[in-house]
Amino acid sequence: MPIDTADLPEPEELPDDPEDLPPENLNPGWLSQDELAFVRSRLPIVYVEAVPVRVDGLGQVTEVGLLLRGTPEGEMTRALVAGRVRYGESLRDALFRHLETDLGPMAFPQIPASPVPAQVAEYFPMPGMSPYNDERQHAVSLVYVVPVTGSCSPRQDALEVSWMPPADALAPGTLAELAGGRGRLLRQALSTVGC
Amino acid sequence: MPIDTADLPEPEELPDDPEDLPPENLNPGWLSQDELAFVRSRLPIVYVEAVPVRVDGLGQVTEVGLLLRGTPEGEMTRALVAGRVRYGESLRDALFRHLETDLGPMAFPQIPASPVPAQVAEYFPMPGMSPYNDERQHAVSLVYVVPVTGSCSPRQDALEVSWMPPADALAPGTLAELAGGRGRLLRQALSTVGC
Amino acid sequence: MPIDTADLPEPEELPDDPEDLPPENLNPGWLSQDELAFVRSRLPIVYVEAVPVRVDGLGQVTEVGLLLRGTPEGEMTRALVAGRVRYGESLRDALFRHLETDLGPMAFPQIPASPVPAQVAEYFPMPGMSPYNDERQHAVSLVYVVPVTGSCSPRQDALEVSWMPPADALAPGTLAELAGGRGRLLRQALSTVGC
Amino acid sequence: MPIDTADLPEPEELPDDPEDLPPENLNPGWLSQDELAFVRSRLPIVYVEAVPVRVDGLGQVTEVGLLLRGTPEGEMTRALVAGRVRYGESLRDALFRHLETDLGPMAFPQIPASPVPAQVAEYFPMPGMSPYNDERQHAVSLVYVVPVTGSCSPRQDALEVSWMPPADALAPGTLAELAGGRGRLLRQALSTVGC
Repeated sequence: MPIDTADLPEPEELPDDPEDLPPENLNPGWLSQDELAFVRSRLPIVYVEAVPVRVDGLGQVTEVGLLLRGTPEGEMTRALVAGRVRYGESLRDALFRHLETDLGPMAFPQIPASPVPAQVAEYFPMPGMSPYNDERQHAVSLVYVVPVTGSCSPRQDALEVSWMPPADALAPGTLAELAGGRGRLLRQALSTVGC
Repeated sequence: MPIDTADLPEPEELPDDPEDLPPENLNPGWLSQDELAFVRSRLPIVYVEAVPVRVDGLGQVTEVGLLLRGTPEGEMTRALVAGRVRYGESLRDALFRHLETDLGPMAFPQIPASPVPAQVAEYFPMPGMSPYNDERQHAVSLVYVVPVTGSCSPRQDALEVSWMPPADALAPGTLAELAGGRGRLLRQALSTVGC
Repeated sequence: MPIDTADLPEPEELPDDPEDLPPENLNPGWLSQDELAFVRSRLPIVYVEAVPVRVDGLGQVTEVGLLLRGTPEGEMTRALVAGRVRYGESLRDALFRHLETDLGPMAFPQIPASPVPAQVAEYFPMPGMSPYNDERQHAVSLVYVVPVTGSCSPRQDALEVSWMPPADALAPGTLAELAGGRGRLLRQALSTVGC
Repeated sequence: MPIDTADLPEPEELPDDPEDLPPENLNPGWLSQDELAFVRSRLPIVYVEAVPVRVDGLGQVTEVGLLLRGTPEGEMTRALVAGRVRYGESLRDALFRHLETDLGPMAFPQIPASPVPAQVAEYFPMPGMSPYNDERQHAVSLVYVVPVTGSCSPRQDALEVSWMPPADALAPGTLAELAGGRGRLLRQALSTVGC
């Protein structure tokens, strides 16, 4: 199965015209395809992931947002907001950047005041080392539950953000639609907010 | 010293005209003075406490709010938002009620999505059992860091809410102005948000 | 069914010969049946609950312990270690006391260094206020995951401590055997340890 | 001062006879000096840090362990247990490996059951981006409080593990002896265990 990860592709991975790439020499956090392939085979990569939620006036989670997108094979899969942390970028900046990329500029996420994540997920390319799997890399992912207060309009390649009550997000059928073990991760993240 | 607690008096403790008291038979959570004295000598009492903070667009704490009020002796002391949880009242409701009482109705607090507190403080009337002391009672207090987004206008008996950068709130001089060990508690609560 | 709670009865609730009761005047934390009935109708009661686990040398949970006991109706139900915190008793002391009562004196529990619980559960006697229900009282319960290193021999009225892999403890059938919403609570507590 | 970090040098950084190096082709997690220099300039590096503590029978922290070592300049500095997570290595394995390296094989650390760290520290080589600074790299460090139950005998280049009561570890003079902002980090980590 060529698509084993639930997060959206990052710009570095898109088959782009090199002219469209940001000037690499300006930002050491940008990696060429070769460099990315090298580091992915030698080092754990730092990721952030976010479970977008809506809360009521007392902070209680009322809805959970899941990204829905089509794979190149035409399958629909669900995904969390997720992406790499760049060199020189803070976790908060990375979280905000990926939320904006995946939910649009009007989502108005409330990044948690605490840097301690709701859960830590370790993705390995080799099966069996952990409940979480990512063919591309060994990633250490800090997972946050993030209330969003605005309206979400995902960029084109995510077809939809679907909102559902926590009980629906926790239904076995929904959890199974998240790839790479992220159903379990979603369940763990929602547990921290009492769901 | 007759005032050993930093939280503001609750309505039950005020020397009130009984006519002003809410109808007790309507809400079993209201206790008469005698009842309160009895339960305080026999049971740990559930409290919530809140450290109000202001955060920037990335969730980073920029300011910490502390209540400043005069004691009957004319001393100024600093306090956290704090109060008892009533029978039949959820922790979220109690947190919201005490935030509204102490910060006014326009504070717009963002109650955290997680019910797990930043810290748990155990107050004992007997000295030496814990770093936290409350002459009146044995209290188990769940402490939350709560971002507020509106404007704060405390009720009359709290003279002021003063806002200060986290480094000032953590200065030994400030921490020492919180009674009953709450300086230590403030330090612990702010630690959870990276301060 | 008159017994809807999963925790084991506390000594105060047992239909005992009064001579067997501890001398109440020596410990204000002891309550007579009448006093307990009064406070349970007027105040939230502080509880601690524990999920006993076994861990490997790297701290990974390998087994989860659940109490199995018969109700007066002859039904078998599963329960967590649980009980009330007494006046003047620290949370750690209460946790240790209830672990010893339910698992025996040779369980050697490792009480967590952090007083912050894995989860907070609010039990209400009125249905619908929370996922957790306790006919007897409004209880605020601090829930901990506690590794035990010794051997467990529960007191007589708990027929058994059964140990199972985390996946079995999380199976819907097992979770449904915990009363009062504690299946959900067990799932949340195990989520914090990556299960 | 060329050495501004409190963690002990890793084997990769030691000026070694190449013969002494582990066979790099057997473990992709090993990096040559050039490779390490490259990745450190392009990616955040995953670290684990540990605050070793001793606890009493109720889990209360009684002592805090700090590494004491001499710099090449002859200064004494205090340090936490710290080190890089290798490719393909779990956080638990990395934590155990660094604890064993720094505290010896008889320390018998109790790695926490929860993978969620007590705190997350972001080290940047550029000053001002964070309270934590590491000249060598951008590191994202997951910090745990780890009870140890055995006896500690650090390897040669750490002269001593010194144990002290939590109040002494939190004294401003002690915190100031930890480089790169780790005094603040120690304070935050100890806050999570009620100190």
